[in-house]
Amino acid sequence: MQDKPLILITNDDGITAPGIRTLIKIMNQIGEVVVVAPDSSQSGKGHAITIDNVLTCNPITIDDGPQLEYACSGTPADCVKMALNEILNRKPDLCVSGINHGANSSINVIYSGTMGAAIEAGIEGVPAIGFSLLDFKWDADFRYSEEYVKKISLQALQNGIPEGVVLNVNIPNLKTEEIKGVKICRQANGRWKENFDKRKSPFGKKYYWLAGDFIINDKGQDTDLYALEKGYVSVVPVQFDMTAHHMIEKLNLWEL
Amino acid sequence: MQDKPLILITNDDGITAPGIRTLIKIMNQIGEVVVVAPDSSQSGKGHAITIDNVLTCNPITIDDGPQLEYACSGTPADCVKMALNEILNRKPDLCVSGINHGANSSINVIYSGTMGAAIEAGIEGVPAIGFSLLDFKWDADFRYSEEYVKKISLQALQNGIPEGVVLNVNIPNLKTEEIKGVKICRQANGRWKENFDKRKSPFGKKYYWLAGDFIINDKGQDTDLYALEKGYVSVVPVQFDMTAHHMIEKLNLWEL
Repeated sequence: MQDKPLILITNDDGITAPGIRTLIKIMNQIGEVVVVAPDSSQSGKGHAITIDNVLTCNPITIDDGPQLEYACSGTPADCVKMALNEILNRKPDLCVSGINHGANSSINVIYSGTMGAAIEAGIEGVPAIGFSLLDFKWDADFRYSEEYVKKISLQALQNGIPEGVVLNVNIPNLKTEEIKGVKICRQANGRWKENFDKRKSPFGKKYYWLAGDFIINDKGQDTDLYALEKGYVSVVPVQFDMTAHHMIEKLNLWEL
Repeated sequence: MQDKPLILITNDDGITAPGIRTLIKIMNQIGEVVVVAPDSSQSGKGHAITIDNVLTCNPITIDDGPQLEYACSGTPADCVKMALNEILNRKPDLCVSGINHGANSSINVIYSGTMGAAIEAGIEGVPAIGFSLLDFKWDADFRYSEEYVKKISLQALQNGIPEGVVLNVNIPNLKTEEIKGVKICRQANGRWKENFDKRKSPFGKKYYWLAGDFIINDKGQDTDLYALEKGYVSVVPVQFDMTAHHMIEKLNLWEL
């Protein structure tokens, strides 16, 4: 069936993560699937690309599904570049990234490798969605996500996603009957307040683990954090024109 | 002098790069300087943070200037988090990142470690500027940048930068008399078209270098690429609310 949509799948938790295996299973019901995903965890890699080192990308078989799979040594954004420019012989109809183990709501869109991959696909003109479940555990239960991942992907294929925009979908860690539905949202204003965990190595050298608490500076009821808190799946349209257009007039008053 | 502004400096080329040494020299004329920068090259790291590994951060003396310096094992964004939460005992008045060896105009804002650091400072409420010179060579000549770096930093300290915005400054690789001035711009619409450089290791294994050509999809005369092409320093205000607000209404028509 040549009419089947071509779907590129990637993630940041690595090609063997239960989240991407679930996503592959769902997308096999919708289209022809090619997976190009990191060979190891790339969490927190944001939109990093590999320019100071070489990349490898090799075919791999993980289960008996019909999809083609490739494990890549790079970041999620590298995987998308590799897929679009080396592996696929036509432009995919959709790129889906995830399902991430853990939330990528609010400012986390900017640290997220899952979203880095989706944004890279968007930059290259491919409709793209990042999916995340609000459970960071390796053995998170992705069953209740499946319905929403499928529905949102089908709507994206049917309606299209305008150029310059990708979708950031977060799914609450609830059972089907507890999920209230889907809300289109804006990114909540929040940030991490770091509290580094300081330790000493067996050789007496000081080292740190990045750790902290999330601070929400937003009381809006139209945000992703509010929707998730209330039991909804949040969908934030994300753009990669980062220009603060409203500031241009003000900056023109500076004496430069 | 306790009235001197406190200035945090970082970069992505590493703490010994000529670009950051120039930036330190300039900022020592303006305020009290603390440097927290990567101990190695972190080019292309975007907004990556280190969550799957530990970090080290140690004092270092590189020249006889009055600044305090720390070399950090992490990404540029890690350096800013480390500085603001572990090293500095008060919030800096300004964070400057760079001067990057090479352009960070157009979509490169999203791949840039230099801008990742500036954006991280912005997220944490610190006025921030990323500076880049359009010469990627290690021995690039930063002399002609100095005047503009100083002028823009002083204006930022004087006027402030509103919350939620940081500045992305690119400087053409020209002599003083050839630089036409400063233009406030929007991010040009452009992207990389990858053309991976495929090689074989001595052991016969295939590997890749990420390489490609830049494609400009923008004929606007209000972009950073246009300004730089015409010999101006470009200043783009960058925001980290990535919501595509104009898409929310359209997405509410989807059947979800």
